Order: sequence, then C-alpha cells, then structure tokens
Amino acid sequence: MENLQDLFDKIMGTARNIEEGRVAAYIPELAQVDPSLFSLSMTTLDGTTCSSGDQGCFFSMQSISKAATLCFAIETLGRDKVFSKIGMEPCSEPFNSIMKLEMTSSLPLNPFINAGAIVLTGMFNEQYGSLAIAEIVDFFSRLMGRQTRGSLRINENIYRSEKATADRNRALAYFLHNAGTLSGDVEEALDLYFKLCSIEVNTVDISVMGATLASGGRNPVSGEELLSIDTVYIVCGLMSVCGLYDQSAEFAVEVGIPAKSGVSGGIVCVVPGRMGLGVFSPPLNKSGNSVAGIRALAALSRELKLRGI
Amino acid sequence: MENLQDLFDKIMGTARNIEEGRVAAYIPELAQVDPSLFSLSMTTLDGTTCSSGDQGCFFSMQSISKAATLCFAIETLGRDKVFSKIGMEPCSEPFNSIMKLEMTSSLPLNPFINAGAIVLTGMFNEQYGSLAIAEIVDFFSRLMGRQTRGSLRINENIYRSEKATADRNRALAYFLHNAGTLSGDVEEALDLYFKLCSIEVNTVDISVMGATLASGGRNPVSGEELLSIDTVYIVCGLMSVCGLYDQSAEFAVEVGIPAKSGVSGGIVCVVPGRMGLGVFSPPLNKSGNSVAGIRALAALSRELKLRGI
Amino acid sequence: MENLQDLFDKIMGTARNIEEGRVAAYIPELAQVDPSLFSLSMTTLDGTTCSSGDQGCFFSMQSISKAATLCFAIETLGRDKVFSKIGMEPCSEPFNSIMKLEMTSSLPLNPFINAGAIVLTGMFNEQYGSLAIAEIVDFFSRLMGRQTRGSLRINENIYRSEKATADRNRALAYFLHNAGTLSGDVEEALDLYFKLCSIEVNTVDISVMGATLASGGRNPVSGEELLSIDTVYIVCGLMSVCGLYDQSAEFAVEVGIPAKSGVSGGIVCVVPGRMGLGVFSPPLNKSGNSVAGIRALAALSRELKLRGI
Amino acid sequence: MENLQDLFDKIMGTARNIEEGRVAAYIPELAQVDPSLFSLSMTTLDGTTCSSGDQGCFFSMQSISKAATLCFAIETLGRDKVFSKIGMEPCSEPFNSIMKLEMTSSLPLNPFINAGAIVLTGMFNEQYGSLAIAEIVDFFSRLMGRQTRGSLRINENIYRSEKATADRNRALAYFLHNAGTLSGDVEEALDLYFKLCSIEVNTVDISVMGATLASGGRNPVSGEELLSIDTVYIVCGLMSVCGLYDQSAEFAVEVGIPAKSGVSGGIVCVVPGRMGLGVFSPPLNKSGNSVAGIRALAALSRELKLRGI
Repeated sequence: MENLQDLFDKIMGTARNIEEGRVAAYIPELAQVDPSLFSLSMTTLDGTTCSSGDQGCFFSMQSISKAATLCFAIETLGRDKVFSKIGMEPCSEPFNSIMKLEMTSSLPLNPFINAGAIVLTGMFNEQYGSLAIAEIVDFFSRLMGRQTRGSLRINENIYRSEKATADRNRALAYFLHNAGTLSGDVEEALDLYFKLCSIEVNTVDISVMGATLASGGRNPVSGEELLSIDTVYIVCGLMSVCGLYDQSAEFAVEVGIPAKSGVSGGIVCVVPGRMGLGVFSPPLNKSGNSVAGIRALAALSRELKLRGI
Repeated sequence: MENLQDLFDKIMGTARNIEEGRVAAYIPELAQVDPSLFSLSMTTLDGTTCSSGDQGCFFSMQSISKAATLCFAIETLGRDKVFSKIGMEPCSEPFNSIMKLEMTSSLPLNPFINAGAIVLTGMFNEQYGSLAIAEIVDFFSRLMGRQTRGSLRINENIYRSEKATADRNRALAYFLHNAGTLSGDVEEALDLYFKLCSIEVNTVDISVMGATLASGGRNPVSGEELLSIDTVYIVCGLMSVCGLYDQSAEFAVEVGIPAKSGVSGGIVCVVPGRMGLGVFSPPLNKSGNSVAGIRALAALSRELKLRGI
Repeated sequence: MENLQDLFDKIMGTARNIEEGRVAAYIPELAQVDPSLFSLSMTTLDGTTCSSGDQGCFFSMQSISKAATLCFAIETLGRDKVFSKIGMEPCSEPFNSIMKLEMTSSLPLNPFINAGAIVLTGMFNEQYGSLAIAEIVDFFSRLMGRQTRGSLRINENIYRSEKATADRNRALAYFLHNAGTLSGDVEEALDLYFKLCSIEVNTVDISVMGATLASGGRNPVSGEELLSIDTVYIVCGLMSVCGLYDQSAEFAVEVGIPAKSGVSGGIVCVVPGRMGLGVFSPPLNKSGNSVAGIRALAALSRELKLRGI
Repeated sequence: MENLQDLFDKIMGTARNIEEGRVAAYIPELAQVDPSLFSLSMTTLDGTTCSSGDQGCFFSMQSISKAATLCFAIETLGRDKVFSKIGMEPCSEPFNSIMKLEMTSSLPLNPFINAGAIVLTGMFNEQYGSLAIAEIVDFFSRLMGRQTRGSLRINENIYRSEKATADRNRALAYFLHNAGTLSGDVEEALDLYFKLCSIEVNTVDISVMGATLASGGRNPVSGEELLSIDTVYIVCGLMSVCGLYDQSAEFAVEVGIPAKSGVSGGIVCVVPGRMGLGVFSPPLNKSGNSVAGIRALAALSRELKLRGI
C-alpha cells in the first residue's frame, strides 16, 4: 500500500490548495472551522485503513447522518415501514423545499432530504422513546468500527445551535405533522434530528462506514455483520442517485460511485466490493458540497478506476 | 459460457411469464405489439454475445435513443456546447413536464428528458442540416456494431405516428424556442427527434451499445474506438441517476447499474468493465418502464453481482 | 324600510332552507355549531340597522378578522410598512399554501391569506408588545360601533382549540420567520393571530363594520371617524379581488361587491356609498365560504342592484 | 359637461407628461408606436361621448379583445359551455404561464389569460368555421357602436407579426390540445386568436363598449340590446378580479372599477350604472399595463367618485 499512500498524499496536496468555496455559515459553530483542514481516508475490505492530511480532526456528520440513519431505520423498522411514509425518488429541488412537499401530498421524495430524515426520527421516537438517541449512537458507533476507539459523541454546541436556528426545519416538521406524515411530538422529532446531525466523526470513521456498505454489510474492521444485503442495496442505490443534493448527477459523472455529503464538508463514499472512502474539507460549493472533497474523489476515481473503467 | 446461457434461459423463462404492466398505447403502432415478446442479450468485453428469448425481434428505440444521441452530441459538438443549454440534474418530474421548464428558466434539467433531447436535435440540424439524420444513423450503427449486420433503419409507420400525435412535444419545443434554448426551425428539430425515436433495434444491438460504454468507449465487436472516456463517464453517470424516468432511484436500488429505458419496452444497461445488456418486453409499469425487463435485470444483477456485491 | 324588512325576511326564509355545505370541522368548537342558524343584517349610512333571522347569535370572526386587522394595520403602521412585507396580488392557491410562499421568496401575496395576516400580527407585537391584543380589540369594537353594546370578547374555547391544532399555520410562520418576513417571536405572533380569529361578533357588528367602510371611514352608528379614505380604498380593493379565498372571482360574478368571509360562516360586505351587510350561516362550500350566505347576498345584490346595475 | 371636459383636459395634461414605462417591444409593430400618444374618452349612459387628447388614434385591442370575446362567447355559446373548459378563478401567475396549466390539469384559470382565450377561439372555429372572424368582428363593431362609424378592421401588419412570433402561445395551444381542452385545429385557433388581438380601435370605441356593459347590456349609442344582464355580471365580475394581469389587485385599490387592459396601452373601464371609459397611452409598467392610463383613471376615479365613495 506504499504507492497508495503516495497517491493519497499527492491528491491531498493538490486538493487542499484549492481556494474555492465557502464554509457553511448558517450556525456560528460551522462558520468558525478552519477552512484549510483536509483529510482523506480509505478502508479496504480487509480492514486496512490508509489516511492522509489532518486525519484526526473531527466534524459533525450533518447530512452524512442521513445515510447511517437509513441503515438503522431499515434494519430496525423494516423496509416496508420506512417507505410507507417516504418515497424513493430523485429530487431536483433544494434539500429543504416545502413546495415539493406540497406538490407530493406531503410524502418526502426520499430519506436523504430533510423532510424524509425528520419523518424517520419521528418513527424512532415512537419505537424507542427516550432511548432512541442511545440506540442510534450505539449503532452508528458499530457501523464505524468504533468498538476499540470509543463511542461517538454529540457536539453539544453544534446541537444547541442547530436547534436554535431551525425555523426552516421546524416549518417542514409542522407541515409534515399536519399532513399526518410525521407522527408523535414535532419538537422531539426535531430534537433527535438535530442530535444526529451533530454527531462528531473523522474521515476514518466514515471510511469504515463506507467499507461496511462496500462489503455487503459486514464491518471489515470489527468483523460484525451489521446490514443485510437488501439494506446495502437500498442505501447505496439512493446514495448514487441523490447523495449530493442537486449536484448528484454531476457527481455521478465526475466521480461515479455511491456517496453522501454533509454541509460540514464531509463525504462518505462506497466502492462496492472494494473499499469505503471518507473525505473532509469545509469550503462548500453552492450545492452545499465540499469543493476540494469532490476534486480529490474525482482524481482518485480516475486513478484507481473506482467505477470499473 | 454454458452456465450463463442456462441462467439467461431461467431468468427469461420466469420474467416472460409476468403478467403485469400495459403496452404503451399513445400511438397505434406501439399498441399493436405482441405483449408476450421477450428478449435478453449480453455482450461481454471480449465481443461475445449471448441471448435468450425472441432475440431477433425489433423494437423502436424511443428514449433509449437519448443515450446514443448524447454520445453523438458530446463526441461531435463537445461537452461544453451540449451542456450550455442543458443541465446535469436529476429530475423528479414526469419526462414531459413543462412546469419544470418554466421554473428552471427553460433550461432542460438533463439530456434524457424530452426537452433536453429536442434541444440536441436542434443543435444537430444547425450543425449538419439535412445530413443530420444520415450522420446519426451511421453513428448509432457503429455504436451497436452493425458493420456486419447492415445499417439501422427507421420504422416509417412509427415515425409518422409519433409526428402526428406530438402535441405535448410540440408544446415543449415551442416553449424552448420562445426562450431561446432551442435554435433553428422548431418543426425540423421535432422531425429529427421523432426519427431518432423510431430507429429499430433488437436486444443484441443495444447490448453491444452497452458493451461499448462498458469498455470505456471501444466497441468490443468491431474493435472501433468510438467514445472518449469522458463521454463514457458523462453518459453512464446520467444513466445511473436519471435513466429510468421517475423510477431511476428505485432502479438504482433494485438493479444498481447505469441504464436507459424506452416506452417500447427496451432497456440498455452498462456494467462498467464487464459487459453490456439489452432487454426487451413491451408491457410497462406506470413510470413507463418494462416490468419484466426490470425483473429480469434485478435477478441478473443479484446472480452475477453486477454492482460488485 | 318596511319593504326592506320584507325582502330580508323573504331572502332569509329561502336561504336558510338550503341544505348544502358542511360546517367547518377542523376544531371541535366550530363543528358543534347549529347548522340551521342564519342571520342577515344591513346597516345603512344613516346608521339604521335592519336584521332578519337569528340576529343575536354570535360566531368567531375567523378570516373576517383579516379585513379588520388590515384596517388597524394601515391606520397604525402606515401603508408603506404594511406592504413592505406583504404583496397586493390576487391568489389562486389555497389560503394556507406554503408552495406559493416558496415561489414568491416568502412575500405573502396579500394580507388576506394566513401568511399575510401572521406577518401583520408579528408587526403588532413588535409595536405594542403585550398591549397589542387590547389595542386591537378596542379598535375592532369601535369599527363595529360597539360603544353602546359593550366591547368585543374572545371566545376562549375557540382560541385554545385553534392554538392546539395549528400545525399548518405554525409551518407557515416558521417558514416566514426563517425568511425574515416575520419578525419577533413566532409563537407570540401565532398566539395573537389565533386570538383575532376567535373574537366573537354577530351580523349586526359586521354590518356596522361594512357600513364604516361604505361611508369612506366614518362609523355611521357612532359618528366616529375611524379610517382614512386611502385605507378604505385599499381594504375594499382587496376585498373585491381576494375576499373569498379561491372563490373570489365567482363571488365577483354572482354578488359583485367587496366582501370578506370566514370559515365560521360569516361574511361582511361593503356597498360603497350605500351600506354594510353582514350574513351568517355555518355550512360551507369546498372553498370555505358560507353556502346560504352567498345565496342570500346574490339575491340581495340583484334585488337592490347593489353593484349599480 | 363643460366642467367634465375641463377635468378630462387637466387629467390628460398631467398623465401624458409621465415619462415612465416602456412601449411593448415583442413585435416591431408595437415597438414603433409614438410613446407620447394619449387619449381618454368617456361615454355616459345617455350616449354622450367626451374625449381628450389624441382621440382619433387607433391601437390594436390585444388583451382588451378578451373581454369582448367573452361577451360574444357567453351570448352565442352559453355560460355553461364556456365555463366547461375554463375556470373562474383569479390568477397570480403571468398571463402566459404554462406551469399553472400543468398544475390545474390544463383547465385555464379564467377567460382573460391567453390559454383561456385560445380555448374560446377553438370553440368559435368549431361553431362557425371560416365565418367565425366575420361574426366576431360584426359583434365587436356593434358592441362599440360602430354602426355609423364603419366596421372595425384588423391591422394586417400586427396580425402577421403576432403570428410570426407566437412560440409561447403556440406552446400553450399545443399543450391545451394535448390535454383535450382545446378542440379542433391548433393553428386555426391560434390564427383566430391573433386576428382578434389585432383588431384596431380607438378610445371612443372602447368607451362605448364599456358603456354597453355599464348600462346592463344595452349599447347607449345605438340603442341595441346586446348583452343579457347575466353576461354583464360575469364579464364585469372577472374584469374586477383579473382584468389587469398580476396588477389586478393593485388596480382595484387605486382605481376600483371593472377594467381590462391590453399591451398596446389601452384600457377599457366600466362604471356600472354610470359610464364607460377608454384610455390609451403606450408606455407599460412591468405588469404590461399602461402607466399613464392607470394614473389618469386613478385621478378620475377619485375626482368623480367612480367607486361610489
């Protein structure tokens, strides 16, 4: 893997010098992050991890949590229940569009838009009550092979900030509740949603998560069987079609592998049968995706023929 | 390849007995087709083809032509020109939505919706004038390795029927022309569009087209280098995100490989680095995709681990 | 006015026998009302009032309050401030559409849709703080010539019910707050909005309100000058274009005078230079307007040539 | 009427000096008009006409024809047939919106948007065949008291220009035809629509048309009974709610009487029971309405208390 480390270092070196994009600013905690941070990690199916850059640095999962949440949802509630209230369609509207909801009779188009993820946290609250957050954090920790590195933690500052500036998500949630799509207490569903967005990870964590999906459901670090193959197919299928907001098609062209991004600047990727990748660089393009992260993944995809050609 | 033929025959046997879906009826020529026809073909990168079912039977390309058209467009006009008037975004609206056009300032979301494909035929007319159709049919023929099997033909009955019942596409085209997105004569752009939809192929043809993309641009039957790797990345990327109308995300979950469908009942698929697939069965689901075709592809995808897992 | 009383009684007799429409059921307090109640009142510019039917019966103002609220808003905040955050456009969407808001960059189309009225209660809270409700109830009372009949009251049961079942309005309000259109505390703006909807009136009250507008701003019962002519022009102009939700154009055809309806079954009308009218009958059509109320007003409009012909 | 002439001259003098707005430029024939032209006419119910400004000058009816067309449609086809394919709703979208049509299942919201008017010309072609234009021009001529002044004429240059630059209307028409809302030949329906838009009138003509509506249907110049009172109620009702495109509510506030505008710069007004008004000044605001025309009408409305107060 020596050559691979060289490749990583080269790609990292080029990508971290890109001076484009702007760090997310909707909450102060995200705005304060150092924009020059960059980290890239890969975990192969034999459990080996290789990293480059500021690999220790943590960031909140934000929408990356939606992919992990979907894994948990299908495994614990079942595919039928999950997709009884959420669609399986691409979405060309912004991630927080209410208009689209009104046009689709309040059925969120897919689990990766905010409306869909909030419907899921409502289901978790119904199922697990106050234990929901602990159950989910435990699942996420195992998904990321945290058994030996300590459990994941919620960044309290980010959680409180998210909660305090959540008018748009609150509007979505009350709209969904009014339509009967979101069950239970609205504020509690939102609270759990904000907590999941605020879980802190690094690129090693998400590369292990990606590798777990890439292997067909078995965590290659811990050896634990976590996901059925059907769950993997669903999550990877949706990642490939709508994992990067309205830039999903462009990402499919430039990188061409299933992925899920978050506005903190992280992206998790799955190369089925081969590896998981995690990248982190805070400055975002107008779609809300990491500029340097995508650039690094595009280079890696071509160099390693990640899409098969 | 004996076992593969057995697998094909088994999958074909199961799929052709599915009694769901309805044959497209918007023009009489499509409505008259025998719904029990079924054909499945695979072409691997060594140029070998394997088929099962009514493999000789022909069908009009319909929207499958949009994938071949995009190949021709990028190769001859260049990526920049093509995407100066067309977006690269998923689309959750129906394939012929005008509403979406009005909301996006008349920029078709991608080249696989009717509006996008009509903008391309307008560009071809500007570039090639009356020679456009001959140029394109020649390109399509080479894409499908037709050198030894004779050039592709347009089904005149279908072409005339399409043209006579094209109010919706005509509305789209005049709307695009008004906005300056479609250049040149509107009726001539529509005429070329209908001709391309009416080109007749069989599943062997489209499996070779798929294999040409799967190989990175070299036709494995004729050995001709037809597409640059960048063209392949674009076409396959869009196929994976928006190749099956509003069922694209579900197809990504169930089958998980780049594909493009048409309302005649055909689907072309690409397994990068491995093979091309073509399937044909006329009865469609409500999204306009072949019911038995998708069922067969889903079975094949699992059996042959086409997505890598 | 003897003949007028006969006409009223005749129209009342016919209208109250209409067995169409359904009483509003979104809160229990509205659903429990006696559907056979009917009341019709007229106040002419000399201060005379004539009534027929169950003239004493009270009902909550609901959206009728929006017309009185707009009077108060323009008189106290000024036209410029009011229309800095709210448009002056007809609306063909439902009264609680969020889609429309998203398409108009969060500028409510007019002050008679819920979003517009909530923006106004936010402005009142900013201006008057906790005194807002007292100020407004006092103004409404004077608008309806309540000086000798005692001040208006809020129906506490209705207010509490509105507040408890307000997901859709809550979604609107958080959406508006997120966009910066609604200032101040969201829940307090909603609270004031629900209180104004819950103010109890009878048809005499609203006929005096109508007469005050019809006179150009002077309450013909109390003699008090309450509204400038510019305020009257604005309120009556909007009533004529968007006073009856998506039935406004049909009402302009059938009745042809400025009016504002509410889902409790009341309608206030203005016949400029002549009189104010109030009608009440709980069963509503699908647009949310009183079936028998509109029928009675249409008959009255033709009999008394209320639109001038 | 001496004082009235003075008032007219004063208002005309003020309004014609307004240097705002831009002359419509979508066809060359409209763009070439002298922007300083201004004409104001009034016809009272005794048949007297009073004018000021360039009263002889002609302009094409454009959307003013939609009000006259609706008169003809209801009188000859009946209210039920007319409103079987067209709604009676206000419209907050632009006059040529296709989006709105797609959302309302292809039912044009009202007869004053292009889609609604084109559906009517399709009905006329079905009813009258090639005689339609002659029938309608004769009716329009009588509506405007042209018996002694010679029949109305179509401006051929404008008609041909409209027809040549009609992509947007063509898109609307094919969309409507596809949905079954527009019957018969699409191009013929468009042809008749363009002819009606190109009929030339002056402000005297349209003031007589307004007076005919104001009288309840009897042309006060010729004495001919042309419209039933029900037709008058429908046409005036729609004029008051949606006569000035998306500026209809603002016009109801500023002027407060039923009216219909056209992009040539003309506006016809109805003061029920009193008079008809016609104004013409080419420069338009962004809604497509005559700036100086509205200014003059607003002044006149206040001076003469046209809305009753």
